[in-house]
Amino acid sequence: MNEIKIFCPATIANLNCGFDVLGLCLEGIGDEMIIRKVAEKGIRITKIIGADLPLETEKNVAGVAALAIVNAANPDCGFEIEIHKKIKAGSGIGSSSASAAGAVFGINELLGKPFTRQELVDFAMKGEALASGCEHADNVAPCVLGGFTLVRGYNPLDVIKIESPSEIYAVVLHPQIELKTSDSRAVLPSAVPLKDAITQWGNVGGLIAGLYTKDYELIGRSLQDVIIEPARKQLIPNFDLVKNTALQNGALGSGISGAGPSIFALCKGQEIAEKVAYAMSNSYLETGIAFDMHISKVNDEGVKTI
Amino acid sequence: MNEIKIFCPATIANLNCGFDVLGLCLEGIGDEMIIRKVAEKGIRITKIIGADLPLETEKNVAGVAALAIVNAANPDCGFEIEIHKKIKAGSGIGSSSASAAGAVFGINELLGKPFTRQELVDFAMKGEALASGCEHADNVAPCVLGGFTLVRGYNPLDVIKIESPSEIYAVVLHPQIELKTSDSRAVLPSAVPLKDAITQWGNVGGLIAGLYTKDYELIGRSLQDVIIEPARKQLIPNFDLVKNTALQNGALGSGISGAGPSIFALCKGQEIAEKVAYAMSNSYLETGIAFDMHISKVNDEGVKTI
Repeated sequence: MNEIKIFCPATIANLNCGFDVLGLCLEGIGDEMIIRKVAEKGIRITKIIGADLPLETEKNVAGVAALAIVNAANPDCGFEIEIHKKIKAGSGIGSSSASAAGAVFGINELLGKPFTRQELVDFAMKGEALASGCEHADNVAPCVLGGFTLVRGYNPLDVIKIESPSEIYAVVLHPQIELKTSDSRAVLPSAVPLKDAITQWGNVGGLIAGLYTKDYELIGRSLQDVIIEPARKQLIPNFDLVKNTALQNGALGSGISGAGPSIFALCKGQEIAEKVAYAMSNSYLETGIAFDMHISKVNDEGVKTI
Repeated sequence: MNEIKIFCPATIANLNCGFDVLGLCLEGIGDEMIIRKVAEKGIRITKIIGADLPLETEKNVAGVAALAIVNAANPDCGFEIEIHKKIKAGSGIGSSSASAAGAVFGINELLGKPFTRQELVDFAMKGEALASGCEHADNVAPCVLGGFTLVRGYNPLDVIKIESPSEIYAVVLHPQIELKTSDSRAVLPSAVPLKDAITQWGNVGGLIAGLYTKDYELIGRSLQDVIIEPARKQLIPNFDLVKNTALQNGALGSGISGAGPSIFALCKGQEIAEKVAYAMSNSYLETGIAFDMHISKVNDEGVKTI
């Protein structure tokens, strides 16, 4: 096998209470990549369709991630990468992580899988660091592993895939406004009241317990964020209205996807997800801001060959 | 049935990362209580053996908790309570919670169980509030429900019993020094760096995941506290030495039990627990401070009739 076509899914990081540690993988929303094994050593980005991103390997998230795995594997060949971007950059649903994860997954497949998916997260994180300025795994982990993931810690990287119930659907409303991750980071407090931190880790515990026990009500009660959302939501027009609309229409929870501006809701079952998506769309029309809507089951598989 | 004898187990709260939200129930360390249904309405503490605690109902943790359940149930009778304290007050292993939990459990049994164990946690918390100055459920929850428990939130009280592996043993070293909960609270920071809060909630998530998946290594990696322990450990002589000794001898994790001064370690299996207890004891001898040692399996049942 010398060429592989890959689906690189979008992801939702943070999930309200789990800032920088929790994430989930989406189905049906994602980039495609083609990776070719070639005789000439090195990594070359040969084509990018759908986004204005640099072709230079060292300046491209997929390129940097590819270099990380190739440096570790040291194969007697090189790779060409074609990227068909479908996830918009800066949307808050893991656009750069999808590219990083796709590159390392594809190269690993073409090399005969010398690395586990867990190990691939580490390589993908190197690429992601180019986009976010620091090494974060809360999007690359669900993209590579699928399902819900927890980054327990970073020293060393410790990523756990959380078993989750099969009926969770995510709704994502992506307003077409530019919101840089650096701006989203700038509004965060450097210190938080201990009381709020306790509330937050109680909810992280509740969410993990709810996922393992398939207790949708507990999942819903735990999808709360008393620290990040209050600081960030003013950057997203009509955030409160959209969130409340989602909850009133039966969503388990709703919040900011990653660094925003996308707003997500989690729902039990497709029917409720469709109703919630419809209501969220209607509530956003009055802003006059264009937006995309996605409805997706949680993707338990993660990045894969197609 | 007009009289009931109850075992009221000791508990370990916080468990490193889960300050104010996590706890576990011990076996073989606990108070005993005798509760009698009597014709005359009201609650009377008739005897307290093993501790110098007030007999006045409104000033006694068991009394206040008993009043909470009796006010809710409004029965056509009263109750007499005898307390045989074996858990030392101020030890950090839930002495007051044991009394509060025992009182509400016993009365509920004598009334024909009108309330669920979940509901009893709420009543017991009212008694516990007398001792700690505020309503906390991180000791009463494991005492009433058994096993590992998570207090997801307080508004309203939301307590979850976490399924856990059967081989976890706790070792507790209780130095005979006085350490008031109010002093232990006074050293806590009112605000914490967001970075540390993230580390903490990553570990809470990891610990819950480790318990559900019976992954002892993950449990061990998650038993870390970057917020409370650094502030409190100077109140406990030789804390670092004891903790490091526990870890070097195979404990999964070690930390301050509740508000201290007790130091606990969690171990996989009785053999390791005994080795750890022996080593912890030896490491404490040099302080010249008297101490008690306990080794206990996690008690999945909680407070019970004996």
